[in-house]
Amino acid sequence: MRVSIILAAGEGTRMKSDTPKVLHEILGRPMLFYVLNSCKNAEIEKNLVVVGHNKEKVRGAFEADKDIDFIEQPIGDEYPYGTGFAVKNALGPINDDDTVIILNGDTPLISEYTISCFLKFHEEKGNDLTVLTADMKDPTNYGRIVRNENANVVAIVEEKDATEKQKLIREINSGIFAFKGDALKYAISKIDTNNAAGEMYVTDALKILVDENKKVGSFILRDTREILGVNSRFELANAAEILRENINKTYMLDGVGIIDPKSTYIEYGAEIDRDVMIYPNSYVDRFSVIKKGAVIKNSTIKNSTISEDVLIRSSEIEDSKVGKKTTIGPYAHLRPNSNIGENCKIGNFVEVKNSNVGDGSKMSHLAYVGDADIGSGVNIGCGVVFVNYNGRDKFRTTVGDNAFIGSNSNLVAPVEVEENGYVAAGSTITKKVFKGQLSVERAPQKNIDGWVEKKGFVK
Amino acid sequence: MRVSIILAAGEGTRMKSDTPKVLHEILGRPMLFYVLNSCKNAEIEKNLVVVGHNKEKVRGAFEADKDIDFIEQPIGDEYPYGTGFAVKNALGPINDDDTVIILNGDTPLISEYTISCFLKFHEEKGNDLTVLTADMKDPTNYGRIVRNENANVVAIVEEKDATEKQKLIREINSGIFAFKGDALKYAISKIDTNNAAGEMYVTDALKILVDENKKVGSFILRDTREILGVNSRFELANAAEILRENINKTYMLDGVGIIDPKSTYIEYGAEIDRDVMIYPNSYVDRFSVIKKGAVIKNSTIKNSTISEDVLIRSSEIEDSKVGKKTTIGPYAHLRPNSNIGENCKIGNFVEVKNSNVGDGSKMSHLAYVGDADIGSGVNIGCGVVFVNYNGRDKFRTTVGDNAFIGSNSNLVAPVEVEENGYVAAGSTITKKVFKGQLSVERAPQKNIDGWVEKKGFVK
Amino acid sequence: MRVSIILAAGEGTRMKSDTPKVLHEILGRPMLFYVLNSCKNAEIEKNLVVVGHNKEKVRGAFEADKDIDFIEQPIGDEYPYGTGFAVKNALGPINDDDTVIILNGDTPLISEYTISCFLKFHEEKGNDLTVLTADMKDPTNYGRIVRNENANVVAIVEEKDATEKQKLIREINSGIFAFKGDALKYAISKIDTNNAAGEMYVTDALKILVDENKKVGSFILRDTREILGVNSRFELANAAEILRENINKTYMLDGVGIIDPKSTYIEYGAEIDRDVMIYPNSYVDRFSVIKKGAVIKNSTIKNSTISEDVLIRSSEIEDSKVGKKTTIGPYAHLRPNSNIGENCKIGNFVEVKNSNVGDGSKMSHLAYVGDADIGSGVNIGCGVVFVNYNGRDKFRTTVGDNAFIGSNSNLVAPVEVEENGYVAAGSTITKKVFKGQLSVERAPQKNIDGWVEKKGFVK
Repeated sequence: MRVSIILAAGEGTRMKSDTPKVLHEILGRPMLFYVLNSCKNAEIEKNLVVVGHNKEKVRGAFEADKDIDFIEQPIGDEYPYGTGFAVKNALGPINDDDTVIILNGDTPLISEYTISCFLKFHEEKGNDLTVLTADMKDPTNYGRIVRNENANVVAIVEEKDATEKQKLIREINSGIFAFKGDALKYAISKIDTNNAAGEMYVTDALKILVDENKKVGSFILRDTREILGVNSRFELANAAEILRENINKTYMLDGVGIIDPKSTYIEYGAEIDRDVMIYPNSYVDRFSVIKKGAVIKNSTIKNSTISEDVLIRSSEIEDSKVGKKTTIGPYAHLRPNSNIGENCKIGNFVEVKNSNVGDGSKMSHLAYVGDADIGSGVNIGCGVVFVNYNGRDKFRTTVGDNAFIGSNSNLVAPVEVEENGYVAAGSTITKKVFKGQLSVERAPQKNIDGWVEKKGFVK
Repeated sequence: MRVSIILAAGEGTRMKSDTPKVLHEILGRPMLFYVLNSCKNAEIEKNLVVVGHNKEKVRGAFEADKDIDFIEQPIGDEYPYGTGFAVKNALGPINDDDTVIILNGDTPLISEYTISCFLKFHEEKGNDLTVLTADMKDPTNYGRIVRNENANVVAIVEEKDATEKQKLIREINSGIFAFKGDALKYAISKIDTNNAAGEMYVTDALKILVDENKKVGSFILRDTREILGVNSRFELANAAEILRENINKTYMLDGVGIIDPKSTYIEYGAEIDRDVMIYPNSYVDRFSVIKKGAVIKNSTIKNSTISEDVLIRSSEIEDSKVGKKTTIGPYAHLRPNSNIGENCKIGNFVEVKNSNVGDGSKMSHLAYVGDADIGSGVNIGCGVVFVNYNGRDKFRTTVGDNAFIGSNSNLVAPVEVEENGYVAAGSTITKKVFKGQLSVERAPQKNIDGWVEKKGFVK
Repeated sequence: MRVSIILAAGEGTRMKSDTPKVLHEILGRPMLFYVLNSCKNAEIEKNLVVVGHNKEKVRGAFEADKDIDFIEQPIGDEYPYGTGFAVKNALGPINDDDTVIILNGDTPLISEYTISCFLKFHEEKGNDLTVLTADMKDPTNYGRIVRNENANVVAIVEEKDATEKQKLIREINSGIFAFKGDALKYAISKIDTNNAAGEMYVTDALKILVDENKKVGSFILRDTREILGVNSRFELANAAEILRENINKTYMLDGVGIIDPKSTYIEYGAEIDRDVMIYPNSYVDRFSVIKKGAVIKNSTIKNSTISEDVLIRSSEIEDSKVGKKTTIGPYAHLRPNSNIGENCKIGNFVEVKNSNVGDGSKMSHLAYVGDADIGSGVNIGCGVVFVNYNGRDKFRTTVGDNAFIGSNSNLVAPVEVEENGYVAAGSTITKKVFKGQLSVERAPQKNIDGWVEKKGFVK
């Protein structure tokens, strides 16, 4: 069985944050998610996440994920620090013939592809230990991979211990290792704390196994960006940029049009058809579905389904559904539980909340539709308010097919306007309007001569 | 005469789209447009566009362009594929002494400057064939330019046919060729389909002419990005980024201030004065004119004229005109046919449509002005609605100079408020308001003691 | 004493602008500001800015800065041009033992760190002249640093005067020099105009001092981007990009979360706590303070204080204060002097201006609150307008704690609604509403049977 041990116990003080490092988010998800996701996609069945500081927060964030086992690393003066100690705590569930990969929770760019190839190589070679290495243009501060005359890896030398000649080595240790279960257990049992920091280092396992003539190999990473570690918010932003780029590229290769991928934010998991066009400064979350031919400009789409050929401009859509060929915006807001039909128009400065709107209905400007059930072919005038709240309770309003609600009128819920009902502009409606009725609430218009001059308001 | 043959018959399956490849847009225009535009600017008088798949759509998109001749390439099992066959179909209008340039419709970055220099070189040298080459850092997958001991081009060798030594050649074939008309005809007549794919390749022309001791030369491209071919939406986005960068640079060198060119989208052709400032996340289309001193922030301007010293913030302007020193937004929307005077204020959450607004008039908040003729010095209060639609017909409203329309009132069209007319807040006006009159439609205010407590609404 | 002479007299014709070059802005401040700021932070006590063209505009822009002395360079046919002449005019206030640094006003990226290190080196070496040099991959067009066999700098050779061998030199003159006061005076007295342009070049000082066996040294710049000169708006945009990147990096390293630093615009000087999150397309000016836990999305914050845990989406905030845990937007606008309490909601399409809003009050949609004093726990309904303007004067409105203002109603100032007062939807209120009263201004609702059919409005 393939098992991962993911080191997520670090404090992350350089993040300067109350949030544990591995919970800092990229595109709406903790960076630890991406490591775990790559592991799962690489057919790793058991994932052991070693937590220490802030363990409750980390566990809490992944509560819903049943495929993770958390290992709590004890913290205290009586325990050593270091990656070796972290791994030691995770040895319990490991079987001797397991393939165990050790990763860091703060390298969110590591890909399923790399993990798959790496583990396949490790398993096919029958290695006891395989180290993932990378060729770095500037290897400064990385542990260097030392090979013997046969080009076999024999040691990892840290920067501070490296000779001038070793410092010229460009092949570095990624910090990612694959072990055979029994080799890992053996190596960990031999790792000591005889170093300046008094910590246990998992990198020591390499020399231990080499000295025992175990089979130790290496695998070279193709894209060195994958092992970019995140230790500050600056590095987080860099990793986020690469991840966005990768995700957007995948969508584009699948036929999604993205005008400017560098200013487009799509969460991994969003379901987007080909021939959708996404313009700059748009955000699409992972629970959203966008159908063929839809155009999204300068908008935020969260947990919503956008149907074929919908046009959304400069708007925010949350937890809603939008039917085919409907146009939204600019500057509209669908709040949760809005279900808009086909061929509708939701125009500028319109808010819809917790409402159903039938096909072909229009609310073109400056309206609030809240807690309403609206039929098809309805015209909601400019400035109309669905008065759903009296200061204590909320009520629903019903508007029948082909009704016309005049401008600046109020529908005070609970109330109904039946089909083909007509509300005159400026009316506050508190009683039911029956089919085909005009309802008007208005005083007579009075024009007063000379008033403006008398008041001194003439300009 | 200079003639271009532009190959635009490809299916573009990697675009994963219902739109033919050459019609995919960059900055509001099909990529084929940019190739044609560079050709025309390089004084190519006749442009032959070879279409095949989706020929109707491509023709349709360029219907209005009378300087293009479309050549339909027959498609079927009886016809070979390949660039050679495409060119063969376009030979009809070619004269023996024409200069013929062959380009691909999917290389939108090719510049007028390059084409001009290339053709001038070709013509001055009296070449039968000149190939445009480029020095590529990574030449993988390109055809390599093979030269003899005199440094003359003698062959183009494709990647798959190249020897290990030839693979080291960094000079590659751009796919762009200039021919003398008769040389082209001769070469095409000799091209066969004796290759793995059974296609006709225009690149074969080079060897054919070399073997005939025709005069064959080469011209090296300065900026290799110009020959970037677009085969996927990912490559389209890359080309779009470069094109935007080039266009924005041209505007900046002409004195237009652009805060962040990477997040600013200006279509080629927009007329923008010096000392205009454009802030990030703005889009200006090619039909727009923006005058000196105007400032555009976070806005979209389409087919509109923005006069001197106008300030537009977070707004969308379509098919409209805005007079000097007027301020718009944030969050305003001018819909088509809005003609705004000088020194006006169109404030937040205001929509104007198909209306004329005189100098110095203000509508500062939450108003809809539709189908109206408004004088100068008018104040349109907050929440005012020009009720232009009764559910069946639309009507216009007229408001005279210096009139005052109180908040949340409705002007039910057709209706007029004469100069210095005054509409009280909350009034629905259906009848004419004469000069200097106050018009009010309001019931008496009634205050009911103890109601809130009785209703149980006290908090 | 440390003194700077900053050359800011250039015309900047390539900017193609009515604004003097050094006043062109990056992140809200003239580029000259950044040079001055680095000088001041590097403990330069006296800053002499040499102005010529547009001297009034430059002086005016820095009027408030008392730490600058302006030197007016005479302009006319009788005076030579050139950096040497500019410096000559600034010699008056220089003492013999001063350390004098000469900089250009159009290199806004020069850092305090570089200036500090450079002057420290100059002073510790006891040099008469130190030139700041840089190693340029492509040194074309720069003056080259010529060294003798002892590696001492002996000359600066301009591109046009350089031999082919000298052109291979990659070490270039940054244009930034440090002098001992007396050495500067001596050198300037010897600089002539015997060159093609007939100008005085401060670079000539180097050879003059070398010939006099003065102590001349050099100091190599670490980041060559710091000496990027701005001569066009294109170069200005490049410099702005780097400056934004530097500023954003500093905030991120201090714990501010920035999703996409390339689309985030923070002016140098803004006060932002750790664990603030700033999303793309946001602008924060230098007078703003943002407290821990606040989230800013797609918004502009100017001269405002945003308290802990506030959420602002797609909104503009100017000259205002927002209390803890309040949510704003999307599409809201706080105009100057809005003071919003804690736990408030300012929802979509709401404008607040010159008003105080108490804790826990809500205005969720489409309202205008202007010139108002609102208590705590108040509910402002949708479409409510605070009618603060009668066409001539403005008045204030007062709303007591826990009042409820119904939808689409008008409060015509001056007016008061006392605590627990209740205004019915659609009412225009002109008279005081006392504690616990319901106030309603409304006509009876009339429903007219068959009207829609009679009018022919049935669809």
